[in-house]
Formats: sequence, structure tokens, C-alpha cells
Amino acid sequence: MRPKALVLFSGGQDSTTCLALALQEFPGQVEALAFDYGQRHKIELEQAQKIADLAQVPLTILDFTFISQLSANALTRSDIAIEAKDGELPSTFVEGRNIFFLSGAAVVAKQKGIEVIYTGVCETDYSGYPDCRHNFVQSLNQTVNFGLASHLKIMTPLMWLTKAETVLLMQKTGKLDWYAHTHTCYEGQRPACGKCPACILRLKGFEEAGIKDPLTYA
Amino acid sequence: MRPKALVLFSGGQDSTTCLALALQEFPGQVEALAFDYGQRHKIELEQAQKIADLAQVPLTILDFTFISQLSANALTRSDIAIEAKDGELPSTFVEGRNIFFLSGAAVVAKQKGIEVIYTGVCETDYSGYPDCRHNFVQSLNQTVNFGLASHLKIMTPLMWLTKAETVLLMQKTGKLDWYAHTHTCYEGQRPACGKCPACILRLKGFEEAGIKDPLTYA
Repeated sequence: MRPKALVLFSGGQDSTTCLALALQEFPGQVEALAFDYGQRHKIELEQAQKIADLAQVPLTILDFTFISQLSANALTRSDIAIEAKDGELPSTFVEGRNIFFLSGAAVVAKQKGIEVIYTGVCETDYSGYPDCRHNFVQSLNQTVNFGLASHLKIMTPLMWLTKAETVLLMQKTGKLDWYAHTHTCYEGQRPACGKCPACILRLKGFEEAGIKDPLTYA
Repeated sequence: MRPKALVLFSGGQDSTTCLALALQEFPGQVEALAFDYGQRHKIELEQAQKIADLAQVPLTILDFTFISQLSANALTRSDIAIEAKDGELPSTFVEGRNIFFLSGAAVVAKQKGIEVIYTGVCETDYSGYPDCRHNFVQSLNQTVNFGLASHLKIMTPLMWLTKAETVLLMQKTGKLDWYAHTHTCYEGQRPACGKCPACILRLKGFEEAGIKDPLTYA
């Protein structure tokens, strides 16, 4: 069967939830797309491949390392500390990342005849990233359709959910065990460090949901 | 003086006109940005450098070769013929090109503290490219400002001009001689072939303007 949905897939908790949701909607007709953008931790891409294999979904990994040339940030350079100063964007903000990811996904989707794109961006826990907000995604959806003469629809099922609600949603799909393979830790550690801002946010979500995180922590 | 305008610069006729217009508005405060997107003809980038040197404008060339991996088209692959079938996009359409160029320019501009971006896209002679249209550029302008939390303004001074009007505008800036170094020919030839769709469109513009093209033709 020809693919009907393309999931932006990082191997993290949110995009793994999107993968499960997309498969629920379009069984056997989902593909996944990941990006090498020069991230410090290649383990993200390794985990993405493991989960895609588990889900029996074809995964394409695109070389988007050009993104790391454009601006300095803590996710692509090890000499920049992970921090968030008051009134400034966090040092982990990769300028333009979701613009390029979603635009790249749009081109790939159009090539494959796919009209639905899933992304796990979330405004509720958006960590101060402007390119995870609803207004941004809606505007970009319109922009790519103008620019590609396409009819793509970008789905953001997690946009208004808390991390706890995302965990509960994943439990409903019956794929909670996939979370054991997701990567969240900013320090790039497996078992996860449990102490960086990303791990803390993740653990808080499971605690609020009253569900045990299947991921192994140090 | 700190730069105030960034010109998307291909070394072609339109972007060279934009360079002259930007310098008229912001003398000594203009930078140029070109992209290696895997185009067949590297001569475009060589000519861009020559014109930037003439104009005494710093030119940055970014490696955007990832674009050529995303889709098949006649500008990045020599095995695809240059043609335009009825009801289809021309084979020279590079999917997503202006989305990536303008988004890349937005990230670079923000990094440099520049708030004005010039691009030579033109709806009048847009050759069927959806990413050269006014609606697209306005939508993308809003999208990058949402996504980067920026206040960029994308200027499209040629949007509603015919090629002849662009030539007359360039003459007014006093920089018509820069056109001798611009590259237009789809066949990548210097002297220009004078026969490909791009050369024909260019020559027609000069003819209508009643001005001699300073470029050398075969």
C-alpha cells in the first residue's frame, strides 16, 4: 500500500508518540523521517532506527548538517553550555531547526505522494522555542503549500498536551514499551542521567501521569 | 558600520539588480549570501563572487547541497532535460529551493543583527515556479518571524516588474555594467548560448527596454 503519512522522527518521546498515533490512523502506511543536523549525540539517530524497526516503519535519515553551520548552539557544539537566561532564548535553541525539518519533510512527502505530516511539537511544554508553537506550524503549513504548490496537512497531535497527557495517550495506543528505546537526555547518556533539564521534564510527566517510565536511568 | 541588509545573491540578473537597489538604500551596509545547492553550473557562484567584489560587498556562500538530495530536477541533474509540459511544473523547478534559501538567509540575518533581506523573485516572469510568488514570500516572511522570534522584513523590489522594467530600473542605479558579469544561461555557457529559455527571456527584456545587454553572447 502506498504511504499516507510521514512522521518527523527524532527517536524522542514525543515523535515516538506521534509514530504510534500515525500508525493507529494509517496502519501499514506510515513512513518516518529523521535528520542528522550535527547534533552532539548520534545516539538519537541510533535509537530512532531501533524504534522504527520495532514499529516496522521505513526510516529515512537526511543529512541536514548544514543547520549546524548557520548558528552557534548547545545542541550542536560541545563548547556551549546548556542554559536558559532570563529574557533570552535557551542556548539549546537551534535557529531555524523546525523550519528546515518541516520544509524538508514537506518536499519528501510531496515526492512520495504523501499528504499528511506528523510532528510532535508541543506549545504547552515548549521550553521557550518559538518554532514549536501553534502559530508557527500553521504559518509554515501555509508557506510550504504555497511554495510547493502542494496540499499537505501538518498534524500536531501533542500541541496542547502536557507531558503527562502525552504519556497517557501513548499508553492508550498500547505501545508504551516503545518508550524504553526513546532518547531524551541532553547529556546523551544511556542509561539516562536523570538530572538534565530534558530528563527532569520527562520524569515529571511520568510522575504526574502515575505511570512508570520504562526507560532505564543511571 | 554594521550591516543593515542581506541580499540573496545568485550572480544572476535579478539578484544583481537587488544588490544595486540595496546599496542605494543602505550604502556600505550591505552583505550578500549565495548558495551552493548542487547546481550543475558552478559558474553562477564564480560570477557572484566577481560581482560582489566589484560592488565591494562581503559575500558568504553556504553549502546547501542537501537540496539536491531531496528531489530530482534539471538544474541539479544533467540527466534530466530542461522542459515544461502543459499543466506540470517545469523540470527546472527545484522543490523547496526558495523555502530553504529564504529561511537560511533569515537565520544568517538574525545572527548578524540584520533586519532587511532582499530577494529578486518576480511573479510577473515567474516561469511557473510557485516559490517566486508574492503570497509565498509574504507567508514565508511571517513563518520565519514566528519561528525565529525575529522582526525580519523580506523585500521583493522586482515582484511586479517585467524583465524590461527591471533592466530600466538597473540603468537608473548607474550600475548597468554589472550585468556584463551576471549569469543567466541554463546551459552554463560563457559567452551565453542565447538560445535556452533563460537566455531568450533575458534578451527579450533588453529588447523591450530598448537597451543593449552588456553580456557577451556566442
